[in-house]
Amino acid sequence: MKVLDTKNFSVTGFKTWGIHCGIKKTDKKDLAIVYSDREAAVAGVFTKNRVKAASVLLDAARVKSGKGRAIVANSGCANACTGKRGMSDARATAEIAGRELGVKPDSVFVASTGVIGEYLSMPKVENGIATAAGLLSATGWEQAAEAIMTTDIYPKFSVVQEDIGGKSVTIAGIAKGSGMIHPNMATMLCFIVTDANIAAPALKKALLASTERTFNNITVDGDMSTNDMVLCMANGAAGNKRPAAGSKDLKKFQACLDTVAGSLAKQMVRDGEGATKFVEIEVRNARNPSEAKRAAMTVAKSSLVKTALFGEDANWGRIMAALGYSGVEMDEARTDIYIGKAKLVEKGLGQGKSAEREATLALKQREVQIAIDLHKGKSTAVVWTCDLSSEYIKINAAYRN
Amino acid sequence: MKVLDTKNFSVTGFKTWGIHCGIKKTDKKDLAIVYSDREAAVAGVFTKNRVKAASVLLDAARVKSGKGRAIVANSGCANACTGKRGMSDARATAEIAGRELGVKPDSVFVASTGVIGEYLSMPKVENGIATAAGLLSATGWEQAAEAIMTTDIYPKFSVVQEDIGGKSVTIAGIAKGSGMIHPNMATMLCFIVTDANIAAPALKKALLASTERTFNNITVDGDMSTNDMVLCMANGAAGNKRPAAGSKDLKKFQACLDTVAGSLAKQMVRDGEGATKFVEIEVRNARNPSEAKRAAMTVAKSSLVKTALFGEDANWGRIMAALGYSGVEMDEARTDIYIGKAKLVEKGLGQGKSAEREATLALKQREVQIAIDLHKGKSTAVVWTCDLSSEYIKINAAYRN
Repeated sequence: MKVLDTKNFSVTGFKTWGIHCGIKKTDKKDLAIVYSDREAAVAGVFTKNRVKAASVLLDAARVKSGKGRAIVANSGCANACTGKRGMSDARATAEIAGRELGVKPDSVFVASTGVIGEYLSMPKVENGIATAAGLLSATGWEQAAEAIMTTDIYPKFSVVQEDIGGKSVTIAGIAKGSGMIHPNMATMLCFIVTDANIAAPALKKALLASTERTFNNITVDGDMSTNDMVLCMANGAAGNKRPAAGSKDLKKFQACLDTVAGSLAKQMVRDGEGATKFVEIEVRNARNPSEAKRAAMTVAKSSLVKTALFGEDANWGRIMAALGYSGVEMDEARTDIYIGKAKLVEKGLGQGKSAEREATLALKQREVQIAIDLHKGKSTAVVWTCDLSSEYIKINAAYRN
Repeated sequence: MKVLDTKNFSVTGFKTWGIHCGIKKTDKKDLAIVYSDREAAVAGVFTKNRVKAASVLLDAARVKSGKGRAIVANSGCANACTGKRGMSDARATAEIAGRELGVKPDSVFVASTGVIGEYLSMPKVENGIATAAGLLSATGWEQAAEAIMTTDIYPKFSVVQEDIGGKSVTIAGIAKGSGMIHPNMATMLCFIVTDANIAAPALKKALLASTERTFNNITVDGDMSTNDMVLCMANGAAGNKRPAAGSKDLKKFQACLDTVAGSLAKQMVRDGEGATKFVEIEVRNARNPSEAKRAAMTVAKSSLVKTALFGEDANWGRIMAALGYSGVEMDEARTDIYIGKAKLVEKGLGQGKSAEREATLALKQREVQIAIDLHKGKSTAVVWTCDLSSEYIKINAAYRN
């Protein structure tokens, strides 16, 4: 697998662009189109929130066909909690795009992110789609990635290439999401495109597996959004032989998807609202995988742990307290805690000033590793989070202003 | 019931005081004693965190006897995650107090709050107990309440009087706790004393009921502590007839306990770390009581809702999103949301600019009511929380400095 560190990429058969059409109050881009010049296999993963945006309801129904031609995404307005009118606006968005792109309306997927409870301005959407459709380019990914941003500071890309079925295949993705990020999809949109030839059911299975290992292992603030989705389009333009179930080629494809999704997930955490640190939390030797993940997530979500990280304070008692209320089997007297390479706690007891000094040095870095050994079983989980800073409050107190 | 709005109260047979003995780095008070001149019935409720401080382990065992004479509480050091030495220090604290007060060591309860993972300085504790024991006073509650504070801004009191069993009985409490406050006990210490004559089993039952209705309905940051407890001592000095099971007198006692615990719980939320607003969240017409409470608590804990409250932004979409991921049965198209008296959302849809203006005015007050009607059943729950401000981050980033 070749990991390309660039935003100037292209994926055979795909075109894209992003523009400003007035949905956002600022002059920032707010509408993007992703277009495939031929029918693509499509898979999707959607928010588990019971309150679902119109776009989520529409796409979850459409993705059952396993195929599609385009995605229209807007930022600035979530078109969630907007009832029948919202649903009809989402459908109209797809119809307008179908007309502009010359594809069937029901082959168009719709995505929205932004403020909940406000209606889309359909004249703006209509103008926006017409403009963006006229500008579509094979190398427009930076524009598209910018057009789906809300409180994100930077656009997010990931691109890899791999030889699959005798051809060089590209798998690339763009994503947004910096607050409300939490397992089971949160305020995030992610569009992954590939020129690989792969059957829709295999694509769906691969996407679900990647999501579980990547997007579902990150948390910024514990909130889960109404809008979020990962869509993956595979248009087969690379002309490779379709990878068979269980084949080496399918494993290679999965590894590529994992890499792209993992990179985008980490970028989301790094760009978490107000984040000053990227924090990896590993729980080792839990009783089973679900307890490992639950323990790691409870620590990752604790406001007290996250503020201590912001304050670069090796206050391990807060980690121990979070483990204690996580609901997983643990025994304080068996638990070890590491920050960076410092073994701060052994068998439940602090290891003194020099371990604490070493941990404090590790906390001063932008990337922090916390490892917790429960000594209760053999399961491990790794989750990614960020610290909780004063900036998070500022961003979210004034979000709609 | 007479609610006395004073900190200069006394409860027959009880003496108390609080002093500084050097456990805290500042010159603030850090050790308190509560003493009954005769044997009292004692009941307690303790943290459900699996990681329990030595004081919690000691007291949970002692409270089984249903009786006791004194409480020694320190702030500044939680004596949690301190292993065998911590346990032996907690026992020694009770022994020193027993000696100084002339009571049996195992009739002394111990409470600690502060940084986790540090050992108590026993010479300081010994000096502190000797000093405080010498100063015990019937009106020392302000000193005692100050001595259990950590990040609290002000000490917390509540006092009521009621005629029970032919006598005037006083029920009074002090409490601390401003972060890590969350259902099932969190960083809070609460000591309630009464001169009522009541059997230990009845006292225990009443305390559990009050706790469920008060302390378990508040949340500040979703973290649950290792140390926290409510202890209630009833020494019978009022000379009332013991209230019988199901009696009117027992109901009056319960109402008094509810009032004291409720007042202290609300004071804790008002004094939540960095709180600028006291927020009551009522969920109506949920399918059952546990879903009502879960829905209310999920909204109360959402960082996005809490930052919007801080920003005085009627961003009801975040409330709807939190309801959606709360896991309770709800239907967006049936849900109404009120802020203050403004019906902001009806049947899932925003009610426009004038409702929003009214809601925004309500949000500018220091006390905010949010009501959510799920129209799914007949159960109601009320919880209390505060907003999430930049000050919370400051306090918790630098807590150990």
